[in-house]
Amino acid sequence: MPVNSIPRHIHGGDILGTAASCGLNPGDIIDFSANINPMGPPPAVFEAIKANLAHVVHYPDPRCGRLAAALAGYLDVPVAEIICGNGASELIFLLLAAVSPRVVLLPVPSFSEYEIAARVAGAEIRQLPLNRHNNFVLDLANLEQALDGIDLVFLCSPNNPVGNLIAGESLRDAVRLCTDRGVFTVVDESFLDFVPRWQELTCLSEVAPGKPLFVLRSLTKFFGIPGIRLGCGVGSADLVEALCRRKDPWSVNFLAQVAGVAALGDEEYRENARELVAREREYLDTQMRRIPGILPYPAVANFLLLDISGTGLTASSVCDSLVRKGILVRNCSSFPTLGEGFIRVAVRDRQENERLVEALREVVS
Amino acid sequence: MPVNSIPRHIHGGDILGTAASCGLNPGDIIDFSANINPMGPPPAVFEAIKANLAHVVHYPDPRCGRLAAALAGYLDVPVAEIICGNGASELIFLLLAAVSPRVVLLPVPSFSEYEIAARVAGAEIRQLPLNRHNNFVLDLANLEQALDGIDLVFLCSPNNPVGNLIAGESLRDAVRLCTDRGVFTVVDESFLDFVPRWQELTCLSEVAPGKPLFVLRSLTKFFGIPGIRLGCGVGSADLVEALCRRKDPWSVNFLAQVAGVAALGDEEYRENARELVAREREYLDTQMRRIPGILPYPAVANFLLLDISGTGLTASSVCDSLVRKGILVRNCSSFPTLGEGFIRVAVRDRQENERLVEALREVVS
Repeated sequence: MPVNSIPRHIHGGDILGTAASCGLNPGDIIDFSANINPMGPPPAVFEAIKANLAHVVHYPDPRCGRLAAALAGYLDVPVAEIICGNGASELIFLLLAAVSPRVVLLPVPSFSEYEIAARVAGAEIRQLPLNRHNNFVLDLANLEQALDGIDLVFLCSPNNPVGNLIAGESLRDAVRLCTDRGVFTVVDESFLDFVPRWQELTCLSEVAPGKPLFVLRSLTKFFGIPGIRLGCGVGSADLVEALCRRKDPWSVNFLAQVAGVAALGDEEYRENARELVAREREYLDTQMRRIPGILPYPAVANFLLLDISGTGLTASSVCDSLVRKGILVRNCSSFPTLGEGFIRVAVRDRQENERLVEALREVVS
Repeated sequence: MPVNSIPRHIHGGDILGTAASCGLNPGDIIDFSANINPMGPPPAVFEAIKANLAHVVHYPDPRCGRLAAALAGYLDVPVAEIICGNGASELIFLLLAAVSPRVVLLPVPSFSEYEIAARVAGAEIRQLPLNRHNNFVLDLANLEQALDGIDLVFLCSPNNPVGNLIAGESLRDAVRLCTDRGVFTVVDESFLDFVPRWQELTCLSEVAPGKPLFVLRSLTKFFGIPGIRLGCGVGSADLVEALCRRKDPWSVNFLAQVAGVAALGDEEYRENARELVAREREYLDTQMRRIPGILPYPAVANFLLLDISGTGLTASSVCDSLVRKGILVRNCSSFPTLGEGFIRVAVRDRQENERLVEALREVVS
């Protein structure tokens, strides 16, 4: 069981570990390192969990029937094309093990679990560096060139940690470029719910029988429930059936299932969240540009990638200084190609965003 | 992605599906088909979940630090030898994928997910039939003979669906027989917490550096929380580290982690549960023996395997008749070697057990 080739998991959101290592209370830290909806879950989520607590004495429905039906309505796809997961993360591992690709193409920087899941599945990794001078947008001609000998490719859009639509408005073209060549294509739309009119940008409509395509969605980020975990994948009914057969049947816990159904029922919350995030992202972007040496990249989701190299400070030192002010941000040095020049910050509410701006201004001045 | 060789998941506890197919309300069905502690969770579990609901906006601790520490105390093993999972089920799949055995030995009948996880990992399956005339006890001489060419073996004790200690008092001898020959040995002690003085029967003390041994424990059954999922595995620190690297980092949701810590803190609950289950199992055993044609097998956990072949009825017809009376039991025909002559019933509280006995008496008379 060789593990040396499998990188350690490095992620944001480690409030407990951070608090312990800094001698702070977890409650005294504002977490800008995990990209979670600042509104918190829709109120109906807590009500549904409380109302259903007594039912945890039963096994969860392996098919997640009610949740899958709610998702089918929300995503406008047939229920047979949906598989629910214990977060999108479970489905990434499940899919990679099932497809068992020899060579996986990863545009980088992007979400780090892709590489881990691919290595666990025994795949060789090829990286396709996204050009920072082109705002990390995926160039389709570069993608086409890179597809030679590739069995599976990940396209994360909005891309984490950049926050942009990875191929701009051309994601569907990118998907067809890959699937037409028989390259299994995983589109990770975990942050797409934050984008107004996401329905015009999703690849869900590309799913078709026999097509080597799997679209990931997360309810964890947008509905603010990372602690109870919820995600889903959309693919052809045959693919979904094959994945269900290979899956831990009870992976999606019961409270997550009822939380998901409750969350999906609140349309007003979704609209408010998109408005809040758009407004606060704009605010953060404007304020960040006023800090000498800080450059935010164009983004459409609930986080910003900041080029801090102009400050002359490293990401590690900036993160350390911010933590001492009770602010946790994501050091991006673990992302391929980014090095010590980048941090990622989540979009939170105005009061917290102001504190971030103020703290960052102090740290870099 | 061939799936024809992977059996469909068939399990007890499908109250929703049963209710829907019978036109009943889920609340009108008593579930004897899932082996869950009839006491329900310790009260502290619900309190802990409610008190921590607001924290679901944060990612769960991937290391499950507080829970692992509590488990280390409860199981009396070093914390570095513990890996927490989204139910024991997640860990079965994770381990099989990591060990990647060519040939897996399954004493049968036993828990069906072993075969599914082994097939998903690409393994060939060999079955070792347990002798019903010997009360399904594993014979060590038979085991030794069957180990030739085996890479991994599952030993479930107490064994599901039989309810006995699979090798009686000789489980540690069975484990040594396997590990001495280099056969990776998975001991599933998911139901061992129901056994008084389980500390004298566990294989946890056999875990040692470099030893190909992994011991599974479940908190789902004994603490009555299948809906929020919780299990753990114990192996050498090297094995645990390798599995953590390969694992979905957030698989154990936050509420499960706090529920587990709360549950492990209530020693009185554990003693009461063991007493209740022992008393009620004895009651059910005595009553079942009085029904013509019904023969319960000796059991030490919270369920009984009933040989119903003496009634002249099939398991399917008995299950159907019981469901119409609002009682769900486990048809064992999906278990290898059992066929239509067996059902499995959970031990519940006296009032419910009386209803089961009465209903079964009516059905078979």
